[in-house]
This record gives sequence, C-alpha cells and structure tokens, in this order.
Amino acid sequence: MTMLEIIEKKKLGKELNREEIRFFARAAAERSVPDYQLAAMLMAIRLNGMTDAETTALTLAMRDSGDVVDLSAIPGIKVDKHSTGGVGDTTTLVLAPLVAACGAPVAKMSGRGLGHTGGTLDKMESIPGMRIGLTEEEFIRQVREIGVAVVGQTGHLAPADKTLYALRDVTATVDSIPLIVSSILSKKLAAGSDAIVLDVKTGSGALMHDLESSIHLAEIMVRVGTMAGKPTVALISGMDQPLGTHVGNALEVKEAIDILAGRAGGDLKEVSLTLGGHMLVLAGRAKDQEEAVRMLEHALESGAGLRKLEEMITAQGGDSRVCRDLSLLPQAPVRKQILCGRSGYVNRMNTTALGLAAQAMGAGRMRAEDSIDYAAGYVLQIRIGDRVTPETPLCELHARTEADAERAEAAIRAAITFGDSPSERAKNFLAIVNRDGVRRL
Amino acid sequence: MTMLEIIEKKKLGKELNREEIRFFARAAAERSVPDYQLAAMLMAIRLNGMTDAETTALTLAMRDSGDVVDLSAIPGIKVDKHSTGGVGDTTTLVLAPLVAACGAPVAKMSGRGLGHTGGTLDKMESIPGMRIGLTEEEFIRQVREIGVAVVGQTGHLAPADKTLYALRDVTATVDSIPLIVSSILSKKLAAGSDAIVLDVKTGSGALMHDLESSIHLAEIMVRVGTMAGKPTVALISGMDQPLGTHVGNALEVKEAIDILAGRAGGDLKEVSLTLGGHMLVLAGRAKDQEEAVRMLEHALESGAGLRKLEEMITAQGGDSRVCRDLSLLPQAPVRKQILCGRSGYVNRMNTTALGLAAQAMGAGRMRAEDSIDYAAGYVLQIRIGDRVTPETPLCELHARTEADAERAEAAIRAAITFGDSPSERAKNFLAIVNRDGVRRL
Repeated sequence: MTMLEIIEKKKLGKELNREEIRFFARAAAERSVPDYQLAAMLMAIRLNGMTDAETTALTLAMRDSGDVVDLSAIPGIKVDKHSTGGVGDTTTLVLAPLVAACGAPVAKMSGRGLGHTGGTLDKMESIPGMRIGLTEEEFIRQVREIGVAVVGQTGHLAPADKTLYALRDVTATVDSIPLIVSSILSKKLAAGSDAIVLDVKTGSGALMHDLESSIHLAEIMVRVGTMAGKPTVALISGMDQPLGTHVGNALEVKEAIDILAGRAGGDLKEVSLTLGGHMLVLAGRAKDQEEAVRMLEHALESGAGLRKLEEMITAQGGDSRVCRDLSLLPQAPVRKQILCGRSGYVNRMNTTALGLAAQAMGAGRMRAEDSIDYAAGYVLQIRIGDRVTPETPLCELHARTEADAERAEAAIRAAITFGDSPSERAKNFLAIVNRDGVRRL
Repeated sequence: MTMLEIIEKKKLGKELNREEIRFFARAAAERSVPDYQLAAMLMAIRLNGMTDAETTALTLAMRDSGDVVDLSAIPGIKVDKHSTGGVGDTTTLVLAPLVAACGAPVAKMSGRGLGHTGGTLDKMESIPGMRIGLTEEEFIRQVREIGVAVVGQTGHLAPADKTLYALRDVTATVDSIPLIVSSILSKKLAAGSDAIVLDVKTGSGALMHDLESSIHLAEIMVRVGTMAGKPTVALISGMDQPLGTHVGNALEVKEAIDILAGRAGGDLKEVSLTLGGHMLVLAGRAKDQEEAVRMLEHALESGAGLRKLEEMITAQGGDSRVCRDLSLLPQAPVRKQILCGRSGYVNRMNTTALGLAAQAMGAGRMRAEDSIDYAAGYVLQIRIGDRVTPETPLCELHARTEADAERAEAAIRAAITFGDSPSERAKNFLAIVNRDGVRRL
C-alpha cells in the first residue's frame, strides 16, 4: 500500500477501507510521506467527501496516532464538553465548577484562542498565577481530590491531527465536514472521557453560518462519537451575537464569576446550565435534563459552584481571591463608554467582526507567537432585538491605548446593524441531536 | 493575492482569472510557494476542472514562465508535431526527414521515454555518436542549413511545467485534462513553432483508453492551441497494438530506416505519412492532404528522405553509415524466435504491458537515473486480426541474457489474447479534430 494509491482511490470517489485510512493517519503523525501528498489527499477528501464509516475510521486512527489518556483512576463517568468556538463563549468556566459541585467529575482539556474566537486556556491564564500545564498525573490527582481540572493538553495526543490541522489551514481545506469531525473527535476521544456533549455553534460568528449545515455537522459528529463507543449529544446553539456580554480574557473570567456569584444572568448563564445539565445526565447524576438543571441552579444559589471554582484556581496555583475581589484581575488603562447614538432596534451583528475587533485590541493572537493582553476587550451592552435611543449604552471598551479604543469603536459600530423596525431576539438553542435523531427547538 | 485565496476559489468551483492563473504558474516556476499548496491546487483542478479560457491562460502562463525559443531566423512556416506517447511509435524519425525533404523546415524538440512508452531522444542516442544536446544557436543553424534537426530541449523552457509535472506524478493528478493540455502545449508553444500537429493516441497503450475521452482531449487541445494563435490539428490514432513492428531503441531506428529505404511498410509508415502530410499542409507546402501525401511518397521512393536522415545524423555528430549498414547499430547478444504455439486469431493486445515488457528488458528506464540498453527489445510479427497456426512466428526477442528473454517471452505472451473467432483489424486513425470540429474516420 502506498500513499499514492490511497490518494488515487479517494480522487476517484471510492470508499477507503480501514487499513488505508490508518496508513494515512499514521503517515500524517509520523510525517513519513511528503506534505504535498497529505495536501492532495486533504483536497480530495474536501471535494469527494467521506462516508460515516470512513469518518469514524479516520477519527479512531487519528486518536490512535498518539497517547490516549487513561482516566480510569477517577471514579465515575467522565463527561467532556466541546464547543466549535464562538465569541464571548465562557461556558466552560461556568459549568465546570457547577457540574463538579453536583458530583460529576470534570477532567477537561481546553484549547487556545483561534482567529476571532477566544480560548479557555487564555482566559484562565488571565488569573494571576494560574497554571494550565499540568502533567497527566497531576491532572488526574486533582480531579480525584477536588472533582475538577481544566488544563492544556497533556502528553502527545492525536499527533496526526496536529499535522493535518496545520496543513488544512494553508491548503483551503478547513471547511471539510469529515476533516472537522475527525479533528474534534480524535482529540476528545484521546482525552479519555466516557461521554461527550458537543456545542455546535451556528450563525454569524460560527464555523457554520446556517442552521442546516450546523445540524448536518452535528448529526455526523453524534453518529461518529456513538460508533466510537462514546454516548454523544450535540446542541446547536446560536452565535448570531456574542454569547456573553463580556468579550476579552479577564473580562470573560469576570462574567463567569459574576454568574457563579449570582450577580449576573443572561444567555451565557442559560447556555452553561443547559450544557452542564446534559453533562450531568450523561454522567448518570440526574435522571433527566429538568432535574439536572435544578441541581445546577441549586449549586449556583448555594455558592457551591463559586467555591468549586476557588478550589480549582487554588489547586492550579492561581490567586483564588479574584473570586471575591475582581479588581485583582488585570485592568485596562483606558476605559471608554460608547453610546448607540441613534434610535431604533438592534437588528443584526456580524459576530466574526466583533471577535476580530477584540483580537485587534490584543485579546487574541494575530500570529501563533503573539502575546495576549489579558485586560483588553469590551462589555457589549445591547442584544439583538433591543430597542435603543441615542443615549443607550452600546459598549464599554477596555483598551491599552486611546488609539486602540478608537479603532475598536469603529470596528464594533461597523459590525452592528440598527434598523427602524424591531427584530426577533436571537434564540440560544436551535436544535438538539442525539442518537435518536434531530429535535428542533 | 495569495496562493491560499486562489486554491480556495478553485476549490469552490469558481473560474480563475488570468492574474490568478499567472500567479499560480509563476509560483510553480519559481517554487515561491510550498509544494503542499501546489499539490492542493492540482487536486482542486483535477476534481473541479477548468474552463477553456482557464486552460488557455494556464498554458500561456506556463509558456511564459521560462524562455520562448525564437525560430524567426529560420525562413518558412515551422510546424511541430507532438504525440501523447505510445509503444513502437517512431513516426518522428520517419516523418522529420521526409517533411524536410519536401521543403518544410522541421525544428523539433523531442523527449525521453516515460513509463511504458519510448522516447525519440533515446532512440536517436542508439545511433553511435549522435548528439541530441545542441545549443539553441546550433539548433537554428542546422535547420537553416539542412532543413531538419531533432534535439532535446534547449534552454529553460516552461519551468512551471517541470515543477507541476513532477508533482502530478506523486499526487495522483496526472489524469487531468486541463493539466495534460497545459503541460503539452506550454512546451510546444515555448519551442517556438508556428503551427502544431497533435497525434492523440487512444487504446490499450495510450493515456486515454477510450475514443470519446481521446476526442475530448483533442478538442480542448485544438481550441487552446488555436486561442494561443497557433493553427492546430489533432489526429486520433489507434494504440491498441504497438504502432511499428519493432519495439526497443535501436530496433525502432532500424524500422524507420527500413521504411525510408523502401524495404518496409505497414502501420508505422501509414501513420508517419498521414501526420507528415498534415505538417506539409499547415506549412503551406501542399494545397491539401492528398497532394501532401503524394509529395511524401515521392520523397520516400526517390530516396530523398533517407538522404535527409543521413544529413541530419551527420550534422548531429552521428555515424550516418547506419543508414546503409544496419549492423552498425547496437546488437543484442541473445536472439530468440518465439512462435504462436496455437491456432486461431489475434484478438487483443495489452499494449501497455507490451511496452512494460520492453522496458523490463532494458529498453526503458525504471527510474530516471537508470541507463538504457539500446539493443534490447523485440520485433512483433503478428497484428490484431491475423490468423495464426502453432508455427506462426510471434516475435523475435533481442535480449541481454537468456533469463531476460524468458521473462520477456512470458510477459509478451500474457499481453496477447488469441481466440477462436476472427476479430477486426485495428484502425490507424479514428478521428481528426480541427477548428471546424470533429470528423470521425
């Protein structure tokens, strides 16, 4: 078997068998074939597609290309959660402590910000002293001791994905469903959890802009996850506006703490409780979603969630006093309130542009080697459907310089469409997909 | 403009504009983008195709990626001929001297053998002393002085093709019509001729196995050649059996000399006269194909063609006595006559397998760095449609060793299908394509 024969077969639109797919994944992990052959193969997959059986085989082969974390030393059913990425999406920092406070172990590996979307690891590092680089042993011990850990990838997980992910980025093959599915799920499976809750974003700030393609992606992920032996549920959630009101690393940590302290509500809270509820059900801690959400609300009201976050921050070397004193988080030197400046209704937001505006302020990296300004970002004070007057606050900017603030103001204004007629509020959840099928909400 | 944007556009099936195509060709020539991006682009072209306008733009951009030979110092209309490659296909050595003897200048650059097909340069080098590496100046002077030169590529022609041709071979993108067309025609256009006769092979030994795809390829080549300002005619000729009876370098030179000396006829002679006739018409030396073929037959009967070949061999440093004394050509130590061994009819030949059998005897290279045994090969003594008895000669092997001869015998026998019922003789020409359309023959 040669890589050339495998490319030829996929080029002709034929179905690859398991051995051929394993050959490809191993070649990517070991870089034993030239990048130009991997690139030709990626484009052939992008244009000719893959069957569910092929996507499953690719996912498993990519998982097996490196280490697979063994979480069996942690008692109970370990449920992982993955989001396809959004703006102002801080659900992990809200739901991880709440789910753990309800008795389900949360052993979670997160990622960095990418393009216009933020990353949980960057947000956590805005907390002074916080370590995200635990060893596998430290990671497992922490979950055994306090029930929760959110860390960067330990060990050498899915090296095939590392190669293919980097190549996809430079060969215009990012938007391939089988490649997206195998990339996400190979890492989730290698991370060792027993079940998976997927948060598939849809809308102007998501990988998939329309509902049907988001549902299609979710269905394939659920089928492949299930075929791989892990109960998998996918929620399709809206990304037509930033999920939380806060965008930027320390600002998003602040919003998560505000929610856990009972001071804030809104869409981020609702989405976190819903996703957390599905985690509790899959973990066998609640008999249904309704009971699960009640448990989470109770953990929130009692303060158990915030205490769990404090424990986690302390365990990972961070200054947990931030949970009681938000002024210990990084603060931006320039703050500027901007107003709507017109009457009317908030009709639409270009959420990708809103994410890029935060990135340009220093909240994200333009290149992998860039450093991040943890304090930079903004608090968006309007939602789609709101009625505004010229004096209605639009957003509060947290910038490094006046010039940054001015550029951000222009970018944010350009990303928001006001109109004279009201528009419907955006829904948080549009569909739920599990092994029984799709239910539209 | 970036290569990534261009790949993205072709991936989405959109038509590229001239600037984008020039960027791609220049990037290939200068290797200014990574091979993995070129590979992804090649696969996107293979799977999404190109319009005629795109293929023309790519052909011209590849031509302009390097030197373009200026043949204006040679008086008259210079007509080039290109074959898509076959087995026992020695038309160049027959028609070049004949066409030149009829007064049309032949300034021809040829290629090496590739895979199962032979190459004119390798055949010429089987003539003792023959030089094929002339400078552009020597090349032009020789055509001015004696009317004909057949040489290897002079200068730095179509470097974009060199990169893309090598990459296609290792990325399963050889079988792309726009890439085939632009590869062939960019080199032909860079070689400086005024008009082009294409010999598109079809059948078991050709790039295209069926008539319809051969016609399709020919139509696009004629359209693109014409759009590039060069009158172009394509003949679709059969490659369901080796064209000549002789396969192997010195053996094919021998057959060409036999034809020019009036001692041999057959399909190679007929095809050479037909292709040469189209060259004479395009060169303005004959008013129609009938007159052109009569002129060529006359040059053959008068011995003018053989004398022109002698002149050319002498001019290129070779021993022209081979034209009168075939024993001066390389001779194989082992000769073995094999017989049909059964009664019946010759029904089919796997011509690719017959070409590979000669290659395995040493007549072709397995790898680019291999050297060639000029004497090795065989004389096939049957044609499709022949009735045979057990005693009918099948072929005469010319081998380096007894073991080589035995392996070749087995391979040749396996490539020929005998049957009990007669089959039709194979046609030499199946269609002709020019700017007015397709005429089936």
